[in-house]
Amino acid sequence: MAQKPSIPKGTRDFSPVEVAKRNYIFSTIKTNFEKFGFQPIETPSFENSETLMGKYGEEGDRLIFKILNSGNFFYSKKGIELPESLNELLVNSAENITVEQRIELNKFTHKISEKALRYDLTVPFARYVVQHQNEIEFPFKRYQIQPVWRADNPQKGRFREFYQCDADVVGSNSLWQEVELVQLYDSVFTALGLKGVTIKINNRKILSGIAEVIGASDKLIDFTVALDKLDKIGEDGVKKEMVAKGISEEALEKVQPLFHFTGTISEKIEKLAQLLSTSAEGMKGIEELKFICENVMELGLQTAYLNLDVTLARGLNYYTGAIFEVAAPEGVAMGSIGGGGRYDDLTGIFGLKNMSGVGISFGLDRIALVIEELGLFPETVTATSKALFLNFGLEEAKYAMKAVMQLRQKGLKVEMYPDNAKIGKQFQHADKRGIPFAVIAGTEEIQNGVYAVKNLVTGEQQTVDFDTLVTVLQ
Amino acid sequence: MAQKPSIPKGTRDFSPVEVAKRNYIFSTIKTNFEKFGFQPIETPSFENSETLMGKYGEEGDRLIFKILNSGNFFYSKKGIELPESLNELLVNSAENITVEQRIELNKFTHKISEKALRYDLTVPFARYVVQHQNEIEFPFKRYQIQPVWRADNPQKGRFREFYQCDADVVGSNSLWQEVELVQLYDSVFTALGLKGVTIKINNRKILSGIAEVIGASDKLIDFTVALDKLDKIGEDGVKKEMVAKGISEEALEKVQPLFHFTGTISEKIEKLAQLLSTSAEGMKGIEELKFICENVMELGLQTAYLNLDVTLARGLNYYTGAIFEVAAPEGVAMGSIGGGGRYDDLTGIFGLKNMSGVGISFGLDRIALVIEELGLFPETVTATSKALFLNFGLEEAKYAMKAVMQLRQKGLKVEMYPDNAKIGKQFQHADKRGIPFAVIAGTEEIQNGVYAVKNLVTGEQQTVDFDTLVTVLQ
Repeated sequence: MAQKPSIPKGTRDFSPVEVAKRNYIFSTIKTNFEKFGFQPIETPSFENSETLMGKYGEEGDRLIFKILNSGNFFYSKKGIELPESLNELLVNSAENITVEQRIELNKFTHKISEKALRYDLTVPFARYVVQHQNEIEFPFKRYQIQPVWRADNPQKGRFREFYQCDADVVGSNSLWQEVELVQLYDSVFTALGLKGVTIKINNRKILSGIAEVIGASDKLIDFTVALDKLDKIGEDGVKKEMVAKGISEEALEKVQPLFHFTGTISEKIEKLAQLLSTSAEGMKGIEELKFICENVMELGLQTAYLNLDVTLARGLNYYTGAIFEVAAPEGVAMGSIGGGGRYDDLTGIFGLKNMSGVGISFGLDRIALVIEELGLFPETVTATSKALFLNFGLEEAKYAMKAVMQLRQKGLKVEMYPDNAKIGKQFQHADKRGIPFAVIAGTEEIQNGVYAVKNLVTGEQQTVDFDTLVTVLQ
Repeated sequence: MAQKPSIPKGTRDFSPVEVAKRNYIFSTIKTNFEKFGFQPIETPSFENSETLMGKYGEEGDRLIFKILNSGNFFYSKKGIELPESLNELLVNSAENITVEQRIELNKFTHKISEKALRYDLTVPFARYVVQHQNEIEFPFKRYQIQPVWRADNPQKGRFREFYQCDADVVGSNSLWQEVELVQLYDSVFTALGLKGVTIKINNRKILSGIAEVIGASDKLIDFTVALDKLDKIGEDGVKKEMVAKGISEEALEKVQPLFHFTGTISEKIEKLAQLLSTSAEGMKGIEELKFICENVMELGLQTAYLNLDVTLARGLNYYTGAIFEVAAPEGVAMGSIGGGGRYDDLTGIFGLKNMSGVGISFGLDRIALVIEELGLFPETVTATSKALFLNFGLEEAKYAMKAVMQLRQKGLKVEMYPDNAKIGKQFQHADKRGIPFAVIAGTEEIQNGVYAVKNLVTGEQQTVDFDTLVTVLQ
């Protein structure tokens, strides 16, 4: 019996229209990456397990797709053994397993699976930089647009296979790079017609400064999460939540200005400088932020807004300086459509120290949804063939194919219907495919060396020679 | 201790220059696919195992990369058991296993692995057509350029991850499609500057006819392989080999004309028609071949040669009509750089009958090697930034960044060196990156609102205003 075909959950087929729309976004981003001096690299879809494992925390390890060793995976030169506890697991087919069994299972997994699918583009990039450090000219500006895979529970907008799109510079501490990355965001979203995105900026060192001031670096996340609710639950509500989380009333008093944190970026920076004056690290963060914001503002953005947001606290495990996040234009309900930051030790884990980097990424699936929602895809994006030559039989087809061939050599997208089918069916095909012109050449047209070309949108039809046909279709 | 980074055998990192060269080939092919009315689709990197398994023969099944179920893969609602024979395998850690153990291992594999990486683009395409048959307008011309994975033993030019590049039409029997696919090959290779490729054509039905005439369809491969050696070992040598393979002397006499199979395509077709006159299927094949070749010749090819090659016998398991293969230009030692054919039942395995298709593929890695060998990559392909603005400190950098920003908004690729490093180092960076211009703006230039621009190839330097700078860099 034939199988009913389907695809694994969390994965997607992309139709011609969908591919065309995605490629439009990809190519717009690529063009801008390259204008800013970034160059593309590509890394393999799977890496050695030890390259990936342990880099994303315990949860990340669990979400990495492992590839079974090929052939007899029960054989290894070092020997493979199934520990008693796992054998029990098999025999009992228990869904829930003990911590000990989990550890044993992970060890066993590592023996029968030595490769794993890429989980993000950052770790493979770090591996690339270290492996090719002698061929690379630093500072190295690279971009990478490739799929990644995560064994996450699929849900609306979250997939098991999706593209990531990163631009990073490694090998320089210059803050000009942060300035340029803000401009790059502005440049891409302007080119996509997505006006009015907000690029939020913060700095890890400012967050450390705040933690220092409130005397509790372990409560920093609780603090920023609660502070972010200011609009919704008001100052009292926020403070209540903070106290409930164990932040002292006294500490809250010290950072009181954060509860009325409005004004221009310069004004905000001024407030922060007073607040964090006792924290050397906080003051360093303010200095960095000031350089970036002042230069961005002085050079000017095309359509994006820059906003200093002290509640922005993404990637606290790895970001060491600037933190970025991009919000869709106001009125579009969508989470962040991009993010990034400065990290001081990208490649240390692979043995290359003191390699500072800064990078940003674009959330492609969400950007596509926003552009769709706002109707910003240009009509030409999904353009199919320009004309369908109808097929009336062998001699007519030969005549048509001659024109088709010559038009293609002039760069035009044209087709001939392959079969001598009923004319209604052929017109319907053009219609369903969204092809705007039909070219009709029967006995009479062949005798006169001309073509009847019908505009399928207006219904207009004219009989023209080849040169005019070229003009009409161009 | 830091890990020494590496990538799995048979996989590759691609540097910026390599990506640029590959993208040049991809985009040339895409442009031509679209000129011919083909539209892109994309399918997931992994499919459900049952979609792939059993579609590529036993050897193929073995070479498919299987993905371990995530989480506790020892648990399944249906229960998983490790048969005694596999447990033995584990305990003894035997490299060689019995047939019974192989079967058990495959069953066990299927329980702990429900997904597998794409092995080619054809089976996923068949699955796509069946799954989306109600949304697709037939005939459906699709192209697909995506990576595939095979657990093959890596060797020179054979990888475990590589791109396939296919164009197929399904839903029509028209031989005009074969004509167009030959033209498409010609069009792509002409656009790549790869002149003089030979497009070999044969027909499955002609091969069946020959098998009928020599009275041994099971010896067809032996026959074509031996015949292919005519140039090397001569008629006697070939016949000796055929007889050794069990083909009778009498049979050889019947196909004697094949040993002097020269002349134009028309002459060859004439000879075949005499030879296969008793085989209905053979005569059908000749009729198809005649239509395709005559129309291709009449319309004319730009730079490729068409050649009828009766020894061409690829894909005998699935091709039912035309068979294609493309050889690199004479003098380039490289196997085939493309191939394809007509298959009558692409989608039957997924329950959709009577869906004839015909397609061709491009061997990207080999095409890249040939283009490299012949020095045909345009110089502009690997073009990096057009100019590097040198960095002499804060004020100078601000002045430079203003120009950089404006040039980028005009679409130019330009960069500023991020750090105020020694000038020699900055020039060296431009040199190593292959950037052709350096722009120098110090105190004097800033005062006069000008830029000193140095051509790093000729050494020429001139001082210009912004508008002239734009012209120089364009």
